[in-house]
Amino acid sequence: MMRYCFTSRVDPRHLDRYRERHAAVWPEMLTALYDSGWRNYSLFLAETGLLIGYFEADDKDLAQARMAATEVNARWQAEMAELFAGDGKPDEGFTFLPEVFNLDDQLRTAGLPVAPASSVAPASSVAPA
Amino acid sequence: MMRYCFTSRVDPRHLDRYRERHAAVWPEMLTALYDSGWRNYSLFLAETGLLIGYFEADDKDLAQARMAATEVNARWQAEMAELFAGDGKPDEGFTFLPEVFNLDDQLRTAGLPVAPASSVAPASSVAPA
Repeated sequence: MMRYCFTSRVDPRHLDRYRERHAAVWPEMLTALYDSGWRNYSLFLAETGLLIGYFEADDKDLAQARMAATEVNARWQAEMAELFAGDGKPDEGFTFLPEVFNLDDQLRTAGLPVAPASSVAPASSVAPA
Repeated sequence: MMRYCFTSRVDPRHLDRYRERHAAVWPEMLTALYDSGWRNYSLFLAETGLLIGYFEADDKDLAQARMAATEVNARWQAEMAELFAGDGKPDEGFTFLPEVFNLDDQLRTAGLPVAPASSVAPASSVAPA
């Protein structure tokens, strides 16, 4: 399971609507993300419109491709598009940042005590999207 | 266990040094973070110098205060200060962003299948810093 972080830009005029929509995402969308292998996925939003996403997956590209292939994602992104700065589909405008540090990995490498890894099931055990 | 995200700014002239230093953080610093209640802590760095931190903790303020009280943190932050844009101690310049979405929480709220929560031990079970 790897960790991924991306940024995007919400239109600062639409922060409240963005928050409202994401406070209760469609159950069908939640299930599609989960079945596509997205784990521990959070979104954080600054008042500037800076949006930061964090998630874990066995394979980011596969998790993104599986999600992009779902019908519900197309409907969701179409509704979200007007809330984002810039053109196009929001989920195609994510900028990923490389990870430069992870505490648990370095504790393990140094042979130091660390809590057991997350018991989250590997993405390979879920049904194909 | 809550999830937290912050941003900061590395001086774009010092990205390589920042990466090198964070590829092998002092074991004493790793242990101090862990004992202070920081969990699943990652740092992500963009070529622009945008630094994004993600971690989990039972109590962010307590985890930060415990860490700030350690001697090793003072030494580490003093060495890192010159790599950051802006003045002051790097760990006092973090800008936290509110979380607006978490997949696992919303799956549970909706009564949908979700992998068990992380088996990470609660911060309250670790020794005080």
